[in-house]
Amino acid sequence: MAIKNAFYAQSGGVTAVINASAAGVLETARQHTDKIGTVYAGRNGIIGALTEDLIDTNADSAAAIAKLRHTPSGAFGSCRYKLKSLEQNRREYERLIEVFKAHDIGYFFYNGGGDSADTCLKVSQISDTLGYPIQAIHVPKTVDNDLPITDCCPGFGSVAKYIAVSTREASFDVASMSKTSTKVFVLEVMGRHAGWIAAAGGLASSPDCEIPIVILFPEVTFNKEKFLATVDRYVKEYGYCSVVVSEGVKGEDGNFLSDQGLRDAFGHAQLGGVAPVVANIIKDGLGLKYHWGVADYLQRAARHIASKTDVEQAYAMGKAAVEYALAGHNSVMPTIVRESSSPYQWSVGMAQLSNVANVEKMMPDNFISEDGFGITQACREYLAPLIEGEDYPPYKDGLPDYVRLKNVAVPKKLDEFKI
Amino acid sequence: MAIKNAFYAQSGGVTAVINASAAGVLETARQHTDKIGTVYAGRNGIIGALTEDLIDTNADSAAAIAKLRHTPSGAFGSCRYKLKSLEQNRREYERLIEVFKAHDIGYFFYNGGGDSADTCLKVSQISDTLGYPIQAIHVPKTVDNDLPITDCCPGFGSVAKYIAVSTREASFDVASMSKTSTKVFVLEVMGRHAGWIAAAGGLASSPDCEIPIVILFPEVTFNKEKFLATVDRYVKEYGYCSVVVSEGVKGEDGNFLSDQGLRDAFGHAQLGGVAPVVANIIKDGLGLKYHWGVADYLQRAARHIASKTDVEQAYAMGKAAVEYALAGHNSVMPTIVRESSSPYQWSVGMAQLSNVANVEKMMPDNFISEDGFGITQACREYLAPLIEGEDYPPYKDGLPDYVRLKNVAVPKKLDEFKI
Repeated sequence: MAIKNAFYAQSGGVTAVINASAAGVLETARQHTDKIGTVYAGRNGIIGALTEDLIDTNADSAAAIAKLRHTPSGAFGSCRYKLKSLEQNRREYERLIEVFKAHDIGYFFYNGGGDSADTCLKVSQISDTLGYPIQAIHVPKTVDNDLPITDCCPGFGSVAKYIAVSTREASFDVASMSKTSTKVFVLEVMGRHAGWIAAAGGLASSPDCEIPIVILFPEVTFNKEKFLATVDRYVKEYGYCSVVVSEGVKGEDGNFLSDQGLRDAFGHAQLGGVAPVVANIIKDGLGLKYHWGVADYLQRAARHIASKTDVEQAYAMGKAAVEYALAGHNSVMPTIVRESSSPYQWSVGMAQLSNVANVEKMMPDNFISEDGFGITQACREYLAPLIEGEDYPPYKDGLPDYVRLKNVAVPKKLDEFKI
Repeated sequence: MAIKNAFYAQSGGVTAVINASAAGVLETARQHTDKIGTVYAGRNGIIGALTEDLIDTNADSAAAIAKLRHTPSGAFGSCRYKLKSLEQNRREYERLIEVFKAHDIGYFFYNGGGDSADTCLKVSQISDTLGYPIQAIHVPKTVDNDLPITDCCPGFGSVAKYIAVSTREASFDVASMSKTSTKVFVLEVMGRHAGWIAAAGGLASSPDCEIPIVILFPEVTFNKEKFLATVDRYVKEYGYCSVVVSEGVKGEDGNFLSDQGLRDAFGHAQLGGVAPVVANIIKDGLGLKYHWGVADYLQRAARHIASKTDVEQAYAMGKAAVEYALAGHNSVMPTIVRESSSPYQWSVGMAQLSNVANVEKMMPDNFISEDGFGITQACREYLAPLIEGEDYPPYKDGLPDYVRLKNVAVPKKLDEFKI
């Protein structure tokens, strides 16, 4: 087998652990220099491949690459860019081949979610459709936890841990204040389509630390009366309550609850989150004092409180991707296979990309409690292992010591390409 | 010296480390059973004293009390309740004496911020004004860092660390996304009057990890044109930028920037935060894609990423309060005295409560950069030691193992009192 170079890129929304997958790819490739030459990283995902904007990962030391394991975000830059089909945009595929040829690239590792799996699938088909030999392996990543086949997605476990920890902490806070002040805390979390992240808020309450939490899932149509009755009941019973609301919650009219047609004093449309909307519903309906927060990027960037399980799985996916390539595979994705929930045991599996691309995994019905505001025991058993363990980054001067790579550009050999 | 019981209570907004001060008070008192009998905690601050709703802290074991050191929020409940003056509400002071007498209380430890210092001062004067011997010691606490005399306030260092860490993490995220997506991240932080917490966002950028950050301080009138020009410059130079905005920022009309007169589709007033307002200004003025977050309670409850310095100082303040009481002091507050910034050295001092109550410490002018959007080197030197060190809580099943005390009620001896 001739030595070929590899291409690696990060795609879509970044996570606290996608760089751990990068470390898995790079460190494993460096152990196989008899088969893999240089790993070129795409600057800003697939755009880096299209524009021949490649990064020489060999310019960074083993020590620097090792630090990727504890650094959040996408070290090489990410992108939101989905390749069209070969029929719709043959030009882009021919350009990819041109770049791959110019830099002797035989391996393509793409690290992303559902859309990225589709891009990776299309690239994997170049061998057949355009006759250029490439092995394309998808490395799973998404905080949304919505990729099929794999038991969970690297990136999700750390968001889940952040939301569970933050909900517990804020609930302790509002409980302290509830006698004379705030009685309800509302936390908005990510999840446009699936309620996986919101569900993690339910972990904040445990048998030895009960907390009244109302979860608003995108899967459950918002019912104002039922919601207010539940909050009211919790506040009467516990003195306070926490609400974890998914950004994707919809009302009975099918519109996002966050889309309230807000206008400023001049009549301009204003974009708000869903948390203040829910807070206002509580104020208007029950007259209770509230606080609200919106975690936004903080939740998916929070490497400081990453799940050890998640970090290990993210690394393992990167490592397996390289191993699968070396074993001759194309158009596949390493997966996480749950062998047992208690004790938690998992192994690395393999999925065909054609079964992964454009399939969204929703929360199973039996994960949402009957009243629609909580998680079931089955959901708890699924989620619990994913937030297990802490994996603290090193600190310097009180701040996490995250690495920034040199990201040295590879000299271009081709003409410019406009995307 | 006869054995007297003590009263301890928590007041105002709670913090990640106010319970560490409680641990300092309780553990130190337990070492002096020859002078201090039982420490009674007030359930929900001074309200617990007025309504004779006392908690027997001896019902909790030494192990449980030790866990307070790593548990955020107010373990005995807090309150927002300011005692009026003796002239305005003699009835309340007479009630306090009645309760103190009934439970043989000779020491009063009040753990709070500026308003609470005023309450504590008034109680400390009971000896003179109403002839009941009490020693009242204030234990400083406030995330706002606005108490005078003390170099810093327990609770602030941990919020500062949370904001600095979160700003660094979210900035790494937006940097990754900036090529094709989000270019500006806006984080709203606490601080109605003083910009101490917002200033901490500036620590996210350091000489070895430069990040373009625009800080909007409540001390600096918001100037839209200057703000947009600065964001625009950063985005052109770095590709992205982060904005840390204090909830207390005001516009040129003197109104809070968050107070935009928002109306929903039915014309009802809506409460939003300042982050979406700033985000909309960026969208309207520069057409840049943004994300925004509101940390709210998460920032002050985040014991999981507390500053070790802060935890130690919070504990030391509780310990010193008891020692000052045993030494015969009344109407004082232990303080943190900075001996040196580099290396950081501090000691415990003492302030007269009459010099503390109702005085607000604002950011010095020379802490805000000339353009009004950043922190100076002097500010950095002040803040840096306060976020030093990590002090992780223990974890169980992936979540911080925070303690809930038994909070056993002391049998009432008096008639009911309506507040």
